[in-house]
Amino acid sequence: MISQDTIVALATPAGAGAIAVIRVSGKDAIGICAPLFHSIRGKDLNKQKSHTIHLGHIKDDERVLDEVLISLFKGTNSYTGEPTVEISCHGSSYIQQEIIQLLLRKGCRIANAGEFTLRAFINGKLDLSQAEAVADLIASDSEASHQIAMQQMRGGFSNEIKKLRDELLNFASLIELELDFAEEDVEFANRTQFQDLISRITKVLKRLIDSFAVGNVIKNGIPVAIVGEPNVGKSTLLNALLNEERAIVSDIAGTTRDTIEDEINIGGIGFRFIDTAGIRDTKDVVESIGIKKTFEKIEQAQVVIYLVDSSELTVDGLQQLKTEIGKIKNKYPQKPLIVVANKVDKLDETQISSLTSEIDNIHLLSAKQNLGVEALQNKLLDFVNTGALRNDETIVTNSRHYDALLKALEEIQKVQYGIDNGLSGDLMAIDIRQALYHFGEITGEITSDDLLGNIFANFCIGK
Amino acid sequence: MISQDTIVALATPAGAGAIAVIRVSGKDAIGICAPLFHSIRGKDLNKQKSHTIHLGHIKDDERVLDEVLISLFKGTNSYTGEPTVEISCHGSSYIQQEIIQLLLRKGCRIANAGEFTLRAFINGKLDLSQAEAVADLIASDSEASHQIAMQQMRGGFSNEIKKLRDELLNFASLIELELDFAEEDVEFANRTQFQDLISRITKVLKRLIDSFAVGNVIKNGIPVAIVGEPNVGKSTLLNALLNEERAIVSDIAGTTRDTIEDEINIGGIGFRFIDTAGIRDTKDVVESIGIKKTFEKIEQAQVVIYLVDSSELTVDGLQQLKTEIGKIKNKYPQKPLIVVANKVDKLDETQISSLTSEIDNIHLLSAKQNLGVEALQNKLLDFVNTGALRNDETIVTNSRHYDALLKALEEIQKVQYGIDNGLSGDLMAIDIRQALYHFGEITGEITSDDLLGNIFANFCIGK
Repeated sequence: MISQDTIVALATPAGAGAIAVIRVSGKDAIGICAPLFHSIRGKDLNKQKSHTIHLGHIKDDERVLDEVLISLFKGTNSYTGEPTVEISCHGSSYIQQEIIQLLLRKGCRIANAGEFTLRAFINGKLDLSQAEAVADLIASDSEASHQIAMQQMRGGFSNEIKKLRDELLNFASLIELELDFAEEDVEFANRTQFQDLISRITKVLKRLIDSFAVGNVIKNGIPVAIVGEPNVGKSTLLNALLNEERAIVSDIAGTTRDTIEDEINIGGIGFRFIDTAGIRDTKDVVESIGIKKTFEKIEQAQVVIYLVDSSELTVDGLQQLKTEIGKIKNKYPQKPLIVVANKVDKLDETQISSLTSEIDNIHLLSAKQNLGVEALQNKLLDFVNTGALRNDETIVTNSRHYDALLKALEEIQKVQYGIDNGLSGDLMAIDIRQALYHFGEITGEITSDDLLGNIFANFCIGK
Repeated sequence: MISQDTIVALATPAGAGAIAVIRVSGKDAIGICAPLFHSIRGKDLNKQKSHTIHLGHIKDDERVLDEVLISLFKGTNSYTGEPTVEISCHGSSYIQQEIIQLLLRKGCRIANAGEFTLRAFINGKLDLSQAEAVADLIASDSEASHQIAMQQMRGGFSNEIKKLRDELLNFASLIELELDFAEEDVEFANRTQFQDLISRITKVLKRLIDSFAVGNVIKNGIPVAIVGEPNVGKSTLLNALLNEERAIVSDIAGTTRDTIEDEINIGGIGFRFIDTAGIRDTKDVVESIGIKKTFEKIEQAQVVIYLVDSSELTVDGLQQLKTEIGKIKNKYPQKPLIVVANKVDKLDETQISSLTSEIDNIHLLSAKQNLGVEALQNKLLDFVNTGALRNDETIVTNSRHYDALLKALEEIQKVQYGIDNGLSGDLMAIDIRQALYHFGEITGEITSDDLLGNIFANFCIGK
């Protein structure tokens, strides 16, 4: 798996910008770049210190390709753990290509997707779950998903697993040692301590496995179905929920977005709003298909918002609303449902009190006047178990880790069964080894080329 | 115009990538960043040397935003000529925004478009034409446009102008000094040397002004109209002209393009191919409109390729072709026209010889078999005056410079008239001052806020 090639790739996003960074890594990185680099004072890159920056020109023979800044990382003091050169050039696609082409002619090859991070893993700069967190970090788009990726990258998750694995490994050795002295009936492994460890491991594994549901929701956003007729004010509601945050964000990215985003970040958690048609009773075939689809979307959602325009609610309409809410509650009794009455600024007191007395827990709101919007945001956040997040607890977001944890738990439960039933050490040893194997899969102590290939293929080139 | 603010912007293209670079510049750049940066060994950025790189975390109080590399540029040793910090973070839009938001809260403001380069100009790191070349360099997409921008950025053009300006300024002072001693009839300025300088300036200005036509063509690509029916093999021809270059380019950028690009790079020169319908005689109203449009496009083009499918050319068709070619030649006698017979691999010798005898200078080609393609490329290149490029001569590409050069020449010609007709020194002095003014406009010795505003507004934010 370890390759001696010196690899090159564009590390910044493609396209024109002020600057672009080209990353070169491998044992010959500095040797290849040094002759191409010409500083005013004739510096030799080979002789410069690590972690220094140098201004000069990249030349292809006599032809000047660009004025660049070179960042030098020597020995193993780099992201990849190999000598690395970062070339910060002008952000023109033409220049980027010319420099990369030149480096290819001089002996580099184009990096594979994720190869820089793969090398960091192989060279022991990161464990596997940390390497995976790098991709999650780049993809993170909310405070919560960012925080989880950051925590994982800093080793929070794998440190816990590694510690338990080391303890378990220790017991495994002791139990296997007992097997060698089987005739003498000795007990090197203290059974009370062993039971204690297995209990601790079981508890941790269960906690981590449980956290996956939260982690998954945080990573992918919480699906919220909005049920309501087209003109009840869905986009005004989304805009109000979004508050001013988006405007600031757009300002910085230098972009303008005209359409309403379906994914909205509330209090650091991503919510994916799924627009649906209503579920009004109908004999029309086309509309019945619409109702079926609405129910399908409710099925996928974790929270349902039923939105009505309260200013257009007649007595009949109110009865119909009650029927429709009843239908959803019947069909999905466990699904959190918020009935939101929009445009309440247009109602008088009598109308409001009739509304609140007829519909339990109706949420009064005026998106336009910004009344009740913050309260709705808080209600949405209440549905997320954010306790774990706030307490800085480890959360599993990666389905590969989740699978390995489930398998490890299965093996640990077999070990527990062995302890409970006084099974012989040789049988338990097999289960312990299996559990160790699954722990190792998470941190990368146990890997296969296939596994690594799968993981790093999801990275972008240049990372 | 000089602002004391510390400015911040994303310097790399927006979007997700392996890394992103956030640039902070201004007198407080290091002071603002230092408290936010936490290295493992507790380094204080304020105490580090210029041109060094530091690994650590950016923290917002206790919250870790990212693991970053900080590049430090102290004093005036930076692009802008101000203390500068470049933060190389993970390439997630979320992280970029979080870090930029943090810096805004700590006292930076978002940079205006081109403000980094504007500061470089104000701080004397670049003259105005060099600053303009930075934008050209980023926009350059062919070897020729890249080479011109690179030459201009390295000062080739402005050095020549500056030198002439200094000489002229010297004479202006001498002539103005004479005016102070008008009654004594002294001559401080040697009239022979002065005439010599004015001749040299005239020559240089004329050369630079003439180069603009070439420069413009190189910067914007050479428009080539392709006249031909839909099925004569236009896209096969474009693909053949493009050769394999595009495939390599796409490989590196990691993109696949399905459609034929209209702009093709041949021998480092960009050619813009404009597709047109034919000009076959017709009574159909819609088709006549098509023919009118074809002529309009020929009007705009610098070269016309008339493409026919030679394998489907009947005797009648050949006569018609001759008529149509005649029409174009009549209407645009000066416009270079290449008649290209495609699919000649399907013809026998008799057919080929009848073709070449009937149509003068017909270019035989088989795009599919790659016959005659290189010869066509060379013919196209012959139409461009690339001599100047090859000889590394200065070429003007910027219309602002072109205007200033034209105005300067006008004033210099007035001075010449003054010399020829023995005009008095005070009249000549006015014209010399005007010429000096226009020279100064190019290099930025003379500027106005409006002018600077116009120039830098065309830059991207972060440059």
